[in-house]
Amino acid sequence: MANERTRGLDGIFRPRSVAVVGASRRVGSIGRQVVANLIAGGFQGPVYPVNPKAEVVLSVPAFPSVAAIPGPVDLAVLVVPPDAVLTAAEQCGKKGVKGLVVITAGFREIGGEGIVREEKLRAIAARHGMRVIGPNCMGIINTEPEFACNASFSATPPPCGSVAMVSQSGALGEAILADAAQAGLGVAMFASVGNRVDVTAADLLAYWGDDDQVKVILLYLETVGEPQEFVQVARAVARKKPIIAVKSGRSEAGALAASSHTGSIAGADVAADTLLQQCGVLRVDNFRDMFALAQALLTQPLPRGPRMAIVTNAGGPGILATDAIAGLGMSMATLAPATTKALRKVLPAEASVHNPIDLIASADAARYRAALRLVARDPAVDGLAVLFVSPIMIDAAAVAQAIVDETRGLQKPVLACVMGRQRGDEALQILQRAGIPVFRYPEDAATTLRLLCRRFRWLERRPVKLPKLRVDKRAAARVLAAHGAGGWLPAAATEAVLQAYGIPFTPSRRVATAGDAATAAHKLGFPVVLKAEAPDLLHKTEHRAVRTGLRTGDEVFAAAQELLARLGGSFPGLSLQVQAHAQGHREVLLGMTRDARYGPLFAAGLGGVQVELLRDVAVRIGPLDGKDPEEMFASLQGRALLGAFRGAPAADLPAAFDALLRLQQLVLDFPRIAEVEVNPFILASRGRQSAAVDGRLRLEAR
Amino acid sequence: MANERTRGLDGIFRPRSVAVVGASRRVGSIGRQVVANLIAGGFQGPVYPVNPKAEVVLSVPAFPSVAAIPGPVDLAVLVVPPDAVLTAAEQCGKKGVKGLVVITAGFREIGGEGIVREEKLRAIAARHGMRVIGPNCMGIINTEPEFACNASFSATPPPCGSVAMVSQSGALGEAILADAAQAGLGVAMFASVGNRVDVTAADLLAYWGDDDQVKVILLYLETVGEPQEFVQVARAVARKKPIIAVKSGRSEAGALAASSHTGSIAGADVAADTLLQQCGVLRVDNFRDMFALAQALLTQPLPRGPRMAIVTNAGGPGILATDAIAGLGMSMATLAPATTKALRKVLPAEASVHNPIDLIASADAARYRAALRLVARDPAVDGLAVLFVSPIMIDAAAVAQAIVDETRGLQKPVLACVMGRQRGDEALQILQRAGIPVFRYPEDAATTLRLLCRRFRWLERRPVKLPKLRVDKRAAARVLAAHGAGGWLPAAATEAVLQAYGIPFTPSRRVATAGDAATAAHKLGFPVVLKAEAPDLLHKTEHRAVRTGLRTGDEVFAAAQELLARLGGSFPGLSLQVQAHAQGHREVLLGMTRDARYGPLFAAGLGGVQVELLRDVAVRIGPLDGKDPEEMFASLQGRALLGAFRGAPAADLPAAFDALLRLQQLVLDFPRIAEVEVNPFILASRGRQSAAVDGRLRLEAR
Repeated sequence: MANERTRGLDGIFRPRSVAVVGASRRVGSIGRQVVANLIAGGFQGPVYPVNPKAEVVLSVPAFPSVAAIPGPVDLAVLVVPPDAVLTAAEQCGKKGVKGLVVITAGFREIGGEGIVREEKLRAIAARHGMRVIGPNCMGIINTEPEFACNASFSATPPPCGSVAMVSQSGALGEAILADAAQAGLGVAMFASVGNRVDVTAADLLAYWGDDDQVKVILLYLETVGEPQEFVQVARAVARKKPIIAVKSGRSEAGALAASSHTGSIAGADVAADTLLQQCGVLRVDNFRDMFALAQALLTQPLPRGPRMAIVTNAGGPGILATDAIAGLGMSMATLAPATTKALRKVLPAEASVHNPIDLIASADAARYRAALRLVARDPAVDGLAVLFVSPIMIDAAAVAQAIVDETRGLQKPVLACVMGRQRGDEALQILQRAGIPVFRYPEDAATTLRLLCRRFRWLERRPVKLPKLRVDKRAAARVLAAHGAGGWLPAAATEAVLQAYGIPFTPSRRVATAGDAATAAHKLGFPVVLKAEAPDLLHKTEHRAVRTGLRTGDEVFAAAQELLARLGGSFPGLSLQVQAHAQGHREVLLGMTRDARYGPLFAAGLGGVQVELLRDVAVRIGPLDGKDPEEMFASLQGRALLGAFRGAPAADLPAAFDALLRLQQLVLDFPRIAEVEVNPFILASRGRQSAAVDGRLRLEAR
Repeated sequence: MANERTRGLDGIFRPRSVAVVGASRRVGSIGRQVVANLIAGGFQGPVYPVNPKAEVVLSVPAFPSVAAIPGPVDLAVLVVPPDAVLTAAEQCGKKGVKGLVVITAGFREIGGEGIVREEKLRAIAARHGMRVIGPNCMGIINTEPEFACNASFSATPPPCGSVAMVSQSGALGEAILADAAQAGLGVAMFASVGNRVDVTAADLLAYWGDDDQVKVILLYLETVGEPQEFVQVARAVARKKPIIAVKSGRSEAGALAASSHTGSIAGADVAADTLLQQCGVLRVDNFRDMFALAQALLTQPLPRGPRMAIVTNAGGPGILATDAIAGLGMSMATLAPATTKALRKVLPAEASVHNPIDLIASADAARYRAALRLVARDPAVDGLAVLFVSPIMIDAAAVAQAIVDETRGLQKPVLACVMGRQRGDEALQILQRAGIPVFRYPEDAATTLRLLCRRFRWLERRPVKLPKLRVDKRAAARVLAAHGAGGWLPAAATEAVLQAYGIPFTPSRRVATAGDAATAAHKLGFPVVLKAEAPDLLHKTEHRAVRTGLRTGDEVFAAAQELLARLGGSFPGLSLQVQAHAQGHREVLLGMTRDARYGPLFAAGLGGVQVELLRDVAVRIGPLDGKDPEEMFASLQGRALLGAFRGAPAADLPAAFDALLRLQQLVLDFPRIAEVEVNPFILASRGRQSAAVDGRLRLEAR
């Protein structure tokens, strides 16, 4: 996989010679800026401007065509008008060019002829074995001294470093480069991928994953182009080095076009979010957080747990940091008694020896030193935020040096927050030079700590093998085969398929008359539930098609008559289901929607009407491993509703985990299943029988 | 009110002469820094250093004592050691000093003798009619040229401007001043209030509320000292000018010590949050948002609604801005058809004429001008975010000028976001000079827009008169008078009190034996609910003390026998309540907890077990007006659970509003009621009878 993805990318990022087709003498033109950037960026090989109307561009001799260039050309940057791109590309292919960076716009993004043009470009590149970045992009940059290559029209030359960045937006690429430079973040390589006719973000992930220069990878994504492949690559690369993403489109209204509940909940961004999380990509909200996190990942170890300590010389910032740490799902470390006792000895009486540890305003370097020595080494502390508001009577540089000295070599992350006069000052520089990220506000430090925790947890998590599930595939296949036309299966057939896969249903009988309903109820035992069923009767509650708590044959008979009379006319094929009462009272939902791009999306949530109204559903992209169901339920906001409370025992969640994995087995065995939902699945307490009371299943036509 | 609060504050902020008691020659000392700041800050009157051991401090002749100063002294800044403060204060009083700024620490914050010292300081000041800022503070600053007075040891002299700031933390005060300067925010006045022995944040609010120099007030609060008074002052001042607060302590574990559900939910920070919101203070999460919002409030009109338009030259930032606007509860404006049509004429085919309006990368000043002219004037647009990622071929300054020209005089807020190379550049300066706030990231602009919307809504909201409620105060008084010892009232008494105030309960009978229970059930009509009651039986569900859906006399008899047998031994005074089934199925909670500092806190939320597990409760500080109950329920996350869905009609929420106002009337009439809760209050659909099925009420001992 990696080979096909990364093949030829050295020709783009580490070329020995570059042609700029469409190089221009005009000030302010992109064709001039690219040549200027290559030269200013210190490209070691020859740069060949190509322009039939110019002899020299920026003091460099120009050629009328690529063919006219005497030596070999590894990389060609195309900045010609759109209708000249195909000819130029063809010439490059013939010349033996390895890679193209097509900056020119006017392709797929304009529709119509642009789409045709893009397809032709793809074909030319494929025929000649050339890799292509773009079209409609800002170019690529490599800052390695040996292979320095700024083949872009960026106005900001990034400082050399060890971060690689890919942007799906050319305009934002420019902004990201400028912001990274301002944040002091050095860049190893950069690419703006534009329309991605060939090279995708996944290709670059694979390329940078194998590159020792690159320590952290940053992504700006608007869409995840080929999710399945992206997941495969990202998951492998994220094990080797951190990947951070800003993904826009959170609010996207484009929910999946599916009519069942699962579908209406698993909107496109939920899928993207869970996809990024599952493959270990750290999604952040904005570029500020992205750069801060990149800095921290480059310099700090990961926290082995969520217990953070704060050392401060001012109460206010200490409280703000505490708020942020607690609010972001971490915890404030409880210091070991020995630490507290030792702190009491070295700190003045007014100081607080409990976390947040407040050294008070008179704290000088010696006091920071003494406190940090104790707190940093406390095994109850997984990570540290050191805050310093610079008072005029304190030597700030000495405090910074104390922080550096006392945390050197520590196997825990240390972040600093310097507030007040000394910002941008010597103290700040001492910390940054020592590789301690410095923040302006405690909240930002806490946000970074949280993401470091998240990466640690992701790296620690190992896939859990699926349990062996005994299923009756043949029985399910028989039922499904009878429904070649596709669409929603009748309720009885749905139940039969799910039961064949070991998903239990409460005992029930299907009948046609009120008399048979009463008889069935007597056989099942009271109380019973009575439901009307019909192919078009999707939302039973809405049509008052469910009657619960019927305790006698007479009640069942009367209710059945009423349902048949009221609904029989509107819903052809109406029949009745008499069902035993479920044993539990906690309802959950289990479901799967097959997405054209992401494949099967599995959902787990609170069931019944709550799922619709509270939208508290966890979604994961398949395949699920043996631990995913547990994690999905654990992530629900309303998970407390499933636990023990007020004397009632906890719901038997493992029954739900098992059922979800069986649902997965079913949809893997039968790709024709487009949607399936078990809702409600009623959880009994441990030791009793949990069971589904309703399900629905939609098949693609065969 | 204002008079007593603001009396004498001119003596502190606009003194004609200042003595610095404890002025020092030592470099790096606070006593030297204060004198230096007064001089450097351009104080127009005489500065009198007071130091018995120095003849001159920073070239200014010093005096051995305050008494030895020849002329009158308006303000004295005390920087002497703690044990010298009282003597110095006494001397100041005798000298006729009007105000003290006590920078010295070592008072209440160290406990013990510090508390005694602080009380003595308070007494001295009161005796001489002096106002006091501090002790344990950083001082005060006024930048008005005429009254320039930097009586602080801040290392950062703030630029003159129209923002007033108060900080409860001295250390953060320093940081806030530095950050404000960096954000380009000019300061009119600043005070670090320290231990607030006399002058409080509320006093300064009142003072600045009446000061025409001050346009926006910023607060950093750690606690709201006297909430009732703060509310009174802040509410009045916020009508005149915006107040923005950073309040730390969000995560504070100090929940109110109350045992009922309402109490356990209405934690201290919830109260502070709702308090600030109710009195129109804009609470922000951090100083970054504070300064950005202050800038916008100083320069931009408020949006008259939540419909925002985005004009951008790059898709990526447009999507990020859309995400943020949607995520923060605003909406994307739907442009008028005429606007869209006109945009189509002036924009290239590839541009998007729908919001976010994407002018694409080739957009120059003329295109921005044409688009803004149309979008800004569209009545469907309440506010505008203009994004610009600077491409090399575009004249950024001209674009900035176009933005300024086309939005000048617009009665809607306009925020700009400039990304990429041009940051800190001419474009940015043109925008800022024209008073258009410029952001680095679209998300930050959206955060500011949201807060502008919030202020508009708050200003628009007018108190709604309480409806006239007919209550039987005498009946309630009779019941309450019978419980002089205080504590939890028996259930029957609680019901009687609540019913006297017009809060309906489902019909029920209280009985002692199983036989009487069955008889009562026959009289009420089946089905019935049977509950065990006893003084110590607080959580009925936990003890399985409630049986629902009993349909025959036999069932009631059997259930009653079981309850009496199982619980009779553990709960002395056990009795039974037979209750008719409630008509609805949507449960809500209504409650009040009387807080020592905040007064009555009212709660409204989802009822039953949901309130405990989902913690979805709205809390307001009393008094509630006629619209508060509606707003409280509208703010619940799970409010959809109370609406119409799946064919069921919406719950009769007005019944809940009415009951909550009756609860308020009750607790206002009887201050002995410490806590009261109606949970669940079961909402029927409109036209049917909603009613409480359980309540509890705790009295203070008489």
